[in-house]
Amino acid sequence: MKVSELGEFGLIQLFQRIVGSPGDDVVVGIGDDAAVWRSNATLQVATTDALIENVHFTLGHTSWRELGWKALAVNLSDIAAMGGRPKCALVSLGLPSDTDVEGLAELYEGMVELARLFNVDIAGGDVVAAPVVMLSVSMVGTADHIVTRAAARPHDQIAVTGLLGASAAGLHMLKKGLLFDSTTAPLREAHVKPYPRSVEGQVLAENEVRAAIDISDGLVGDLSKLCKASSVGARLYAHQIPIHPAVHTVFKQEALNLALSGGEDYELLFTDTMEVVAKVKGLMPCPVTVIGEITSNEPGRVRLLDENGNEMALERKGWEHFAPDDDDKPNEP
Amino acid sequence: MKVSELGEFGLIQLFQRIVGSPGDDVVVGIGDDAAVWRSNATLQVATTDALIENVHFTLGHTSWRELGWKALAVNLSDIAAMGGRPKCALVSLGLPSDTDVEGLAELYEGMVELARLFNVDIAGGDVVAAPVVMLSVSMVGTADHIVTRAAARPHDQIAVTGLLGASAAGLHMLKKGLLFDSTTAPLREAHVKPYPRSVEGQVLAENEVRAAIDISDGLVGDLSKLCKASSVGARLYAHQIPIHPAVHTVFKQEALNLALSGGEDYELLFTDTMEVVAKVKGLMPCPVTVIGEITSNEPGRVRLLDENGNEMALERKGWEHFAPDDDDKPNEP
Repeated sequence: MKVSELGEFGLIQLFQRIVGSPGDDVVVGIGDDAAVWRSNATLQVATTDALIENVHFTLGHTSWRELGWKALAVNLSDIAAMGGRPKCALVSLGLPSDTDVEGLAELYEGMVELARLFNVDIAGGDVVAAPVVMLSVSMVGTADHIVTRAAARPHDQIAVTGLLGASAAGLHMLKKGLLFDSTTAPLREAHVKPYPRSVEGQVLAENEVRAAIDISDGLVGDLSKLCKASSVGARLYAHQIPIHPAVHTVFKQEALNLALSGGEDYELLFTDTMEVVAKVKGLMPCPVTVIGEITSNEPGRVRLLDENGNEMALERKGWEHFAPDDDDKPNEP
Repeated sequence: MKVSELGEFGLIQLFQRIVGSPGDDVVVGIGDDAAVWRSNATLQVATTDALIENVHFTLGHTSWRELGWKALAVNLSDIAAMGGRPKCALVSLGLPSDTDVEGLAELYEGMVELARLFNVDIAGGDVVAAPVVMLSVSMVGTADHIVTRAAARPHDQIAVTGLLGASAAGLHMLKKGLLFDSTTAPLREAHVKPYPRSVEGQVLAENEVRAAIDISDGLVGDLSKLCKASSVGARLYAHQIPIHPAVHTVFKQEALNLALSGGEDYELLFTDTMEVVAKVKGLMPCPVTVIGEITSNEPGRVRLLDENGNEMALERKGWEHFAPDDDDKPNEP
């Protein structure tokens, strides 16, 4: 069935059924003018991220269910990067009138699957007509202590969660129409169904880690943003970058570049003293790797060093919308 | 300048400059992974609304500044309909790469103009590439007491703020290319720069009014939704509907229909006992008119009566996205 046959209000009822009853704290969920929930926290955290068809995804590469998961995941990642606890999501959906209703049911099922893992309520949204599929999710959460981009200090260690480059590698393979096997399946998964570092972000907040950012636009690009916000520089040690092993296997010489600039890894990058980083590393449920150091010179500038301390060229700085060299970008054209 | 020349991060800096310093409660505004603010309220309220080019607006009819105002206004209206106090807005923006940067500056100026009137902070957002202009604003606020759609009771009076039909009349004139004079200028204004009933919504909440909804999809359509949510019916008195005088002047026989089903008036409809409605009417800074009564029969059904109590035909029920008769709708094609 097409959405033009079911209509806006039929769609909202369908979404309401899939989402089910909200948690006890939610006073008003889907179906009123606004969502309402109880909160005793003093700090409220909110973020929004849009995914546009043929810009961020194509339905040939990503299933509806994966798209729903990912739309929620990218917002969870932003809340995690601030050290927040996610609470409620609002889903703003733009749809062509011939969009398949069963696909949209799967989209919501994908969102609900991830939402349940982190006790997040999908509490409202908006459905409108649009020329392509457009998904804008907003997420609201709470925090006791927040971790911004702006407090990194010279001599801080730079650490990252997880392994890098997998998402961009998966996207490259999807775009080239390559088949995935048991070695490369995690690359596809990293791109279409990223797992947000929600728990890890809260570990950062509980330990009052100085600065953090999520790696959505690429390691170098996002580290540059953190450096600019903190008025510091950074050096990265190329040989310490935790590249996903399957990226090495498939992309060989290109693997480092994918890990540095590929984007969409949704890992967390954070900085603090050696002692704090070591402590946090012990508490984290995922691998944590020290990959560099914050410096006092050249605010915003990231330098890449090889194992002999010699500077290496940085090819590109990560994903930017509207950038002139869009064709060269790892994201969908 | 086009956005492809300025780039995503240049745009974000431009928006940051226009928005300026956030209020004292805002700990982190535009420029980090998420926005953060302090809140001591126990109830949090959130809503989201998307405006899509050539669906909700065309830039030939609406200036960038008006579009910015309206994108914020429709969200303020939703928060008002719940009796909430607006606090922070997040702006998710999809843009073609040839979008004019000066236009976008005006868009933000329009948002800021309205935001300042209600002490709302534009605290974050997202900018992405898209095939048409897409604006999805989310707004978060607080409340001590909320007013839902679901608590209307039989024998409640039905009341509305302000005058109806002006927005749809203005849109009709814009689409027909008619010129506006001093009489009809308010019709254009009602469509492109609606004034949200934020203060009025808080009066409803303070007086613990039973049920409310904002009139975004048309009086009859939105009243039907309130009736369905409350499991009640309603009768409307046609001769009591407060039609904007300029709608009468220009649209004559069609005026009542525009007021009943035109949509986008962004007035508040609420229901309570005669005593409460009279009290609230005395406290409101705008006209309030009693236009009907909640009934116990036929849940969800709205009947229209003439001054002799005879039932009149209801032509259409209001705006719905993806509805088969889209061409007949007052909104942009």
